[in-house]
Amino acid sequence: MAKESSSVPCTPLLKDELDIVIPTIRNLDFLEMWRPFFQPYHLIIVQDGDPSKTIKVPEGFDYELYNRNDINRILGPKAACISFKDSACRCFGYMVSKKKYIYTIDDDCFVAKDPTGKEINALEQHIKNLLSPATPHFFNTLYDPYREGADFVRGYPFSLREGARTAVSHGLWLNIPDYDAPTQLVKPRERNTRYVDAVLTIPKGTLFPMCGMNLAFDRELIGPAMYFGLMGDGQPIGRYDDMWAGWCTKVICDHLGLGIKTGLPYIWHSKASNPFVNLKKEYKGIFWQEELIPFFQSAVLSKECTTVQKCYIELSKQVREKLGKIDPYFTKLADAMVTWIEAWDDLNPPKVAAEVPNGPAKGK
Amino acid sequence: MAKESSSVPCTPLLKDELDIVIPTIRNLDFLEMWRPFFQPYHLIIVQDGDPSKTIKVPEGFDYELYNRNDINRILGPKAACISFKDSACRCFGYMVSKKKYIYTIDDDCFVAKDPTGKEINALEQHIKNLLSPATPHFFNTLYDPYREGADFVRGYPFSLREGARTAVSHGLWLNIPDYDAPTQLVKPRERNTRYVDAVLTIPKGTLFPMCGMNLAFDRELIGPAMYFGLMGDGQPIGRYDDMWAGWCTKVICDHLGLGIKTGLPYIWHSKASNPFVNLKKEYKGIFWQEELIPFFQSAVLSKECTTVQKCYIELSKQVREKLGKIDPYFTKLADAMVTWIEAWDDLNPPKVAAEVPNGPAKGK
Repeated sequence: MAKESSSVPCTPLLKDELDIVIPTIRNLDFLEMWRPFFQPYHLIIVQDGDPSKTIKVPEGFDYELYNRNDINRILGPKAACISFKDSACRCFGYMVSKKKYIYTIDDDCFVAKDPTGKEINALEQHIKNLLSPATPHFFNTLYDPYREGADFVRGYPFSLREGARTAVSHGLWLNIPDYDAPTQLVKPRERNTRYVDAVLTIPKGTLFPMCGMNLAFDRELIGPAMYFGLMGDGQPIGRYDDMWAGWCTKVICDHLGLGIKTGLPYIWHSKASNPFVNLKKEYKGIFWQEELIPFFQSAVLSKECTTVQKCYIELSKQVREKLGKIDPYFTKLADAMVTWIEAWDDLNPPKVAAEVPNGPAKGK
Repeated sequence: MAKESSSVPCTPLLKDELDIVIPTIRNLDFLEMWRPFFQPYHLIIVQDGDPSKTIKVPEGFDYELYNRNDINRILGPKAACISFKDSACRCFGYMVSKKKYIYTIDDDCFVAKDPTGKEINALEQHIKNLLSPATPHFFNTLYDPYREGADFVRGYPFSLREGARTAVSHGLWLNIPDYDAPTQLVKPRERNTRYVDAVLTIPKGTLFPMCGMNLAFDRELIGPAMYFGLMGDGQPIGRYDDMWAGWCTKVICDHLGLGIKTGLPYIWHSKASNPFVNLKKEYKGIFWQEELIPFFQSAVLSKECTTVQKCYIELSKQVREKLGKIDPYFTKLADAMVTWIEAWDDLNPPKVAAEVPNGPAKGK
C-alpha cells in the first residue's frame, strides 16, 4: 500500500514482550558491549556443558540462567530432546520464555558499525523486521517495500501489498562469515566486509540456510518450529542445529502463510570456530544434507495442519518415514521432535479461551 | 565452489557479442554521458512514432536505426506483433540483433554514481552478472556467492554450488523509482537514494516485476521469450510490456533451469513519466494483473518444451485458453505471441548443424 514518506514511525522497544536467549559455556563479558541495547530486556541464559561451573554475568542485567541440571529437573525424561555440549541447547530458552518475541545471539558476536561508523542497534532492526509485514508471494525488486523511502514497484499486484505476517527475522554477520568447514579451510582469511543495506523476504517455496547466530522470531507465531534438533554429545553431527530449525520453520511458514526475512541487521562476528573441529561435526551433515534438501523441498503438509504444533508433528512423521532410511539418527530425531512438542505444550499450555472467542465453558 | 580470494577476474568487454538496444522518439543526447561505456558497442536504435522524423545520434557511435517503415518492410504482415507508440517496440531490436547478448536501456537513464562517488559502469556489471552462474534452487543469505569476497554459507548444499546458467540480469534505478501510477500519485516526491550493494537470484517458482529500463539478457539462451507484447497504439493497455516479458521469461527460465538475477547495477533515472497519462495506460492492467499473476504462478510447461520457442508457443496456447476469457485482448495477444516466434525464426533461422553434432544430411 502506498504510504506517505513523511510518516517516520518510531520502533517500539517491546521491552516486556521480548526475551534474549544466549547459549554459552563461559562468562558473558561480551554483554558489556551490548549493554546500551540489551539492558532493558530480560535475558535467558542457557548454560551448556559442566553445570557445576559458574557463569558470570555483568552487573545490571536482568536474567535467568539454566544449566543442565535445571533442564533435567524441569523437563524430566523429556530433557532428552535438548542437546548437550552444543549451542543447539539454546532452544530450551525458547521453550521456557513466556514472551511473544525471542532474539537469540551467540556470545562471540559484537556490535557492528554501519558504513557511516554508527553502532548498529541490531535488536531495533529485528523488531522493525518482525513488526512490519513480509512479502513471500511475489518478489519486490526494491527490497523491503515497507521501509521508509521504498515501496512496491510497478507490476507488483495490488492484492498482495498487504503482505504476510512476519515470523522470523534472520540477521547477518560482518567480519567472520558463517562458512562451513570446507570453505573455512579453503578460504581461511576471507572476511565479510560488505554491508548490504537491505531486508528482503525469502520467497514462498524457497529454502535458505538459517543461521542461529543473530536471529529473532515471533514465538507466538512460530515458536514450536524452532527446535534445534539433536546435536553434540552422543549425536553423530553438529552445526546443523540452526539449519534443521530453519528448514522445518520455512516449510511450516510456507504452509501457514507466514513470512521470513533476511538481511539487516548485521552483528560483528569476532572469531571463526576451528575448521578441523567443525569438519568432524559437519561431515555426516554435508552428505545427509543432499537428501534432506529434496525432502524439505517436496514436503507437503495436509490441510488439517492448522497450528505450528500440528505441522511439526506431521513433519516428524515424514522425517521418520522418509529420512529414517538414511540413518537411524533420523528416527531418533523424529522421536525427539515429538518429545519437543510435548515438552513445549507442557510448559506452554494452550490458551483455550484466547483461541476460541466466546469459547466453550471451562472444563470442556 | 570455494574460490581463492586472490584471483580477481577481469570482466570481458564482449564487444563483438553484445548489442545495446534503445527505443526512442527523440534525439539521443543522453548517449553523450554513456560515451565512455557504450562507444565500443554496436547500438540498435528502434525509433518509435512518426517515421519521417529524424533522430540525431551523437557522432562516433556505431549504430543501425529502424523506424516503423523499416519494421513493416522487414517483417511484412508479421510487423503487427511489434507495438507502435510504446517503448515495447524495443523487442524488434532483440529480433534483428545477431549477437549473443543484449543490453537495453531507456533514453532517460543516465550514469549513476556509487556511494564513493565513482561513476557506475552499468554494462560491465551486467556482463559480470550474465557470465557468472545464478542460484535459483536455494537461497544464499550472503547474496551472490560468486562475487569476490563472498561464497556459499554454511548449510548451502554442495551439489547446488555449481549453480545455473544466467539468462537475465535485471538492473535497478537510483533517483526516480519505477512506481505504478497510483503510487506515483500518492508519493510524487519519493526518490530512491538507497544503494544496495547486492546481486541476487530470483528463486525458482517466484515471479518478479521485470523492468525494461536497465536490462541485459543472453539472447541465445532466452531471446525468444523477451517479447514485450502488444501495447500502445490501438491496444487497451500500456506499461505492462516489460512485466509481460518478465513473467513469461521467468516461467520459461524456471522450466529450462536458467537463472535470473536482480540488483546491481544501478542507473540514474532522470524523469518520472506523467502519472495521469500512466494511469490511463495502466488501469486495465492493474485489475487484469490480479488474474495474470495466479495464471503465471500456476503455469506448467510440458516436458516436450525443450527450447525457448517451444515453451513460448505452449505458453501462448495457455494464454489463449485461460486468459482469453478475461478479455478479447488476450486472444489477440496469444496470436501475436505466435507471430513473434514465427518472425523470430524467420530472422534467426535455427543453426541445425550447431544443434546436432554429426547431424543429419541437409534436407532432412
